[in-house]
Amino acid sequence: MKNLSIGMFDSGIGGLTVLKEVRKQLPHEHIIYLGDMARLPYGNKSPYTVTRYSLENALFLLAKGIKMLIVACNTSSALSLSVLSRKLPVPVIGVIGPAAGEAVKLTRTGKIGVIGTKATVRSEAYPRAIQRLDSHIEVVSRPCPLFVPIVEEGLEGDEVAYLAARKYLGEFDGSGIDVMIMGCTHYPIMEPVIRQVLGEGVRIVNAGRETAKQAIGVLEERGAVRKTGKGGVSYYVTDSPESCREIGSRFLGEPVEHVKFVKNLNLTDFRLPA
Amino acid sequence: MKNLSIGMFDSGIGGLTVLKEVRKQLPHEHIIYLGDMARLPYGNKSPYTVTRYSLENALFLLAKGIKMLIVACNTSSALSLSVLSRKLPVPVIGVIGPAAGEAVKLTRTGKIGVIGTKATVRSEAYPRAIQRLDSHIEVVSRPCPLFVPIVEEGLEGDEVAYLAARKYLGEFDGSGIDVMIMGCTHYPIMEPVIRQVLGEGVRIVNAGRETAKQAIGVLEERGAVRKTGKGGVSYYVTDSPESCREIGSRFLGEPVEHVKFVKNLNLTDFRLPA
Repeated sequence: MKNLSIGMFDSGIGGLTVLKEVRKQLPHEHIIYLGDMARLPYGNKSPYTVTRYSLENALFLLAKGIKMLIVACNTSSALSLSVLSRKLPVPVIGVIGPAAGEAVKLTRTGKIGVIGTKATVRSEAYPRAIQRLDSHIEVVSRPCPLFVPIVEEGLEGDEVAYLAARKYLGEFDGSGIDVMIMGCTHYPIMEPVIRQVLGEGVRIVNAGRETAKQAIGVLEERGAVRKTGKGGVSYYVTDSPESCREIGSRFLGEPVEHVKFVKNLNLTDFRLPA
Repeated sequence: MKNLSIGMFDSGIGGLTVLKEVRKQLPHEHIIYLGDMARLPYGNKSPYTVTRYSLENALFLLAKGIKMLIVACNTSSALSLSVLSRKLPVPVIGVIGPAAGEAVKLTRTGKIGVIGTKATVRSEAYPRAIQRLDSHIEVVSRPCPLFVPIVEEGLEGDEVAYLAARKYLGEFDGSGIDVMIMGCTHYPIMEPVIRQVLGEGVRIVNAGRETAKQAIGVLEERGAVRKTGKGGVSYYVTDSPESCREIGSRFLGEPVEHVKFVKNLNLTDFRLPA
């Protein structure tokens, strides 16, 4: 089992910010990354559709031989983690639990902010995860739907990014939060702007980093961590590999190479599992 | 044949700006509108994937009994119109030809601007269509990828919209264009901002309006226009009908009602037609 790969998927390339952290913390592992670019984004789609896509992605990775699945997408984690955990024969980790845990550890005011896609915020997965850990903590959430297209256009350093950040994050003024969870894998690219607008008093939680830590824990429990050998990544995408290579390297901080095209993930007779 | 419906599809609800014009100009027709919301947007996807989705949408509509297909999506029109026209047994109209024709009629300087999604601009479908009509005309194109999410967030009246418009349209300063084609069905919602930034000297072409005019022409040629009776629309979407109803009415200017959910359009063994 130790020699099997770690599977990861995201709606596109945002999950590469999570992959980056996993690579750093588990350098000997082989990772199979699937970006569902033909159907991105997930953040404005319904729970039914996101769960369908998530399960299709998971089954593709499972067939490749994986010892663990990391759902490197906040929307999928928010809407589909319980279905995936019930249906798959390997441990499944999402990004929400780890980020919630870190935020609860960090807060002093007992007030935590969460930003993410519409679907993630609407699901209330973060407030639920946080309040399971400490029911006294107050959670203030806000979707920031323009952040993803801003990052994908490479405009994170532009005035448009600053204005959008001011608009969205201004709503946290006076809320008393001292921790902010970046509840979308694209947002770490916006971190400098988010940090500038929120100011010094608010600590920022990067869900990807916390998820990588949890992945280590789960593998160690099972004696399944690779301790030697050169790790690597195999990339699969459901749309043209070119655009993944183009934008992906900005997310990963290193070139995204040998990307393979997957033609069809659709389960023709999909029904939402009970 | 006269009593059959007109089929229309778009990647989502943007095509409702085209539907609005068709309804106005062909009030007695019954229209079947399909919004492929589970896979939107098309504008940042590859020609292969967009053509695949377009053909799947077209076959769904064909099976409902249609006398004509309107591709109410600029990206699909740019990348897939020739395949659809060759493969379908009914007339197929896209939004690009009609808009190009109107722009050529209007220009005095012989310089036309085009704004649209990345995929539409990259396809060069507008310059090709315009230069087929008049090879002396110069075309200046620019993708405006933030306009779609801005409109979908209802921010078209916000400072963010103005700033993005300034950023994108500023590149046309000094280009000498006197006509601008809004080459994306979402952009008519941004028209006041676009008009403000471009100023009085530039006439704006709404592709939806011109497409509706062409639809009348094609149906009249075939003696297939319904001259009496109460027209109507049947709506189908591939994701949750709720969000279609929510945003759709802003695009259509009237309530979007009785929306039906389509579970699966996928052709399992899809290959790009030769």
